[in-house]
Amino acid sequence: MAAALALSERGRGRTAPNPNVGCVIVRDGIVVGRGWTQPGGRPHAEAMALAEAGAQAPGATIFVTLEPCAHRSARGPACADLLIGARPARVIAAIEDPDPRTAGEGFARLRAAGIAVETGLLADEARRAMAGFLMRRAHGRPFVTLKLATSLDGRIALADGSSRWITGDAARAHVHLERSRHEAILVGRGTWEADAPRLDVRLPGLEGRSPRRILLSSRHHSPSGGDDGECIGGMDAISTLSGVDHLFVEGGAETAASFLRADLVDRLLLYRAPILIGAGKAALGDIGLTHLADAHGRWRMEDARMLGSDRFEAYLRQRN
Amino acid sequence: MAAALALSERGRGRTAPNPNVGCVIVRDGIVVGRGWTQPGGRPHAEAMALAEAGAQAPGATIFVTLEPCAHRSARGPACADLLIGARPARVIAAIEDPDPRTAGEGFARLRAAGIAVETGLLADEARRAMAGFLMRRAHGRPFVTLKLATSLDGRIALADGSSRWITGDAARAHVHLERSRHEAILVGRGTWEADAPRLDVRLPGLEGRSPRRILLSSRHHSPSGGDDGECIGGMDAISTLSGVDHLFVEGGAETAASFLRADLVDRLLLYRAPILIGAGKAALGDIGLTHLADAHGRWRMEDARMLGSDRFEAYLRQRN
Repeated sequence: MAAALALSERGRGRTAPNPNVGCVIVRDGIVVGRGWTQPGGRPHAEAMALAEAGAQAPGATIFVTLEPCAHRSARGPACADLLIGARPARVIAAIEDPDPRTAGEGFARLRAAGIAVETGLLADEARRAMAGFLMRRAHGRPFVTLKLATSLDGRIALADGSSRWITGDAARAHVHLERSRHEAILVGRGTWEADAPRLDVRLPGLEGRSPRRILLSSRHHSPSGGDDGECIGGMDAISTLSGVDHLFVEGGAETAASFLRADLVDRLLLYRAPILIGAGKAALGDIGLTHLADAHGRWRMEDARMLGSDRFEAYLRQRN
Repeated sequence: MAAALALSERGRGRTAPNPNVGCVIVRDGIVVGRGWTQPGGRPHAEAMALAEAGAQAPGATIFVTLEPCAHRSARGPACADLLIGARPARVIAAIEDPDPRTAGEGFARLRAAGIAVETGLLADEARRAMAGFLMRRAHGRPFVTLKLATSLDGRIALADGSSRWITGDAARAHVHLERSRHEAILVGRGTWEADAPRLDVRLPGLEGRSPRRILLSSRHHSPSGGDDGECIGGMDAISTLSGVDHLFVEGGAETAASFLRADLVDRLLLYRAPILIGAGKAALGDIGLTHLADAHGRWRMEDARMLGSDRFEAYLRQRN
């Protein structure tokens, strides 16, 4: 299942509105098929893995990160039916599909066909891997990641606005990799005007994976300068961004604070350089905190490492 | 030598104006004597270790973190003479004593007595362990450590000033341990008025190691409220603090920035809680930075670990 989850990450940010599923087929201890949801959402992970497994699928064990879909679509058959046709011995799924057209029906159909079904393996990890799809299903909005790149004292720029560079090459490359895992990047007006042309993915081989660029601005108008970005007038409008299940918020301080104030940030990426800036631009404006005790228990460290001499930390918002 | 350095740390913050030396005596592969400079500066580490080694000192190897002193004092004999009398086979010292009364004379006297002398073993580590003594000798001022306890976004308090608590129990206990390794704590007026009674060491067994408390204030006057603290009118006056070779600067933001602006901070301790504060009090005021490039290369990470859910990092100022 861990291998299937790793495969599912390949689709993150490219499969909306479909989930980025991963699938591994094992026969006699050997991996005979691997699949992940393809860009645009089709083929599904199971179809890709079954195509690779071919004649070795009967009797095999199929690991899949999400319940196989039970609904036919104009773009392809239901994965539950595909699986039944391939006659595996067992299907092990991490979590159930919240899509009401499936929601247990996929498992029921497999069991009715005499295939053993188990669920719950690495379920928490699967929820993290498909957080965008699940957030969209549960709350009708994208999963939001906020990026902050700061000095040790929490500054994102000098008082004159200069911010090139705070972090080093490795940290900036990591930011580009994170961008490639999101359907869209959102920034406020100041960052747009300073940086819009740079909000892309500049990593060898991933240049084609630059996300859509969204400008958040209360003054409704099109982005200037012949730019092909989109504009939304308020944070609530992120739910209307079709095909965006993962949204990357990159700044500035007021935009970041607005998202935090509305409790719309699900994941926080911190890149901290070993420098001090002193008086300068703070990472965040007012996030609506009035009691220090309320600040605790909201963020749990998910990942941490050094990127060159910079420190990277990822935090997940803890909600009950 | 590593063991001798560990012993030397026991004296840090308690031996000024003497160096916090560590000494280990090894005979036939067995440690027969251990010593470290005692509170107040006497006995010296070598005297303590020789007393423990007793009759086993002749022919032994003596590891000592600093060149044995060559000058007699009213408080005791020169360590070089003590060592000669003990007839060890070898003396291995990490670094030479910069005190002009010794400065190579200790080594010379040992060699003249037929004792083998080697130097330079773990010299960098020894310089760090005795940084207070060496800073006082080289620049006539204490070694200055600045502590910052912040949120992820670099805030030290809410806008209303509330700062209890940002970091957790483990981080606060670590701060108390660091306090016990300094002869004095310095704060600005705001922190003094808010926290003076709390600037002590509240760790079981270390309550007696609370440092002197120094108030930095441009308005010369005695600390209020019957407090027994001292007051200095400017940063330059830290060089006049007799018996203070390690100074711990605890805040607030303007005091911290003043020390950084004057490039008087040698070590930086960061305690970061996994919380966001947003608009609030910044960790630092103006440190005089005008070009971002100048901020880089000044700080090198010396230590890092988690303290509960807080992150601790120590940085050393890099000077050529």
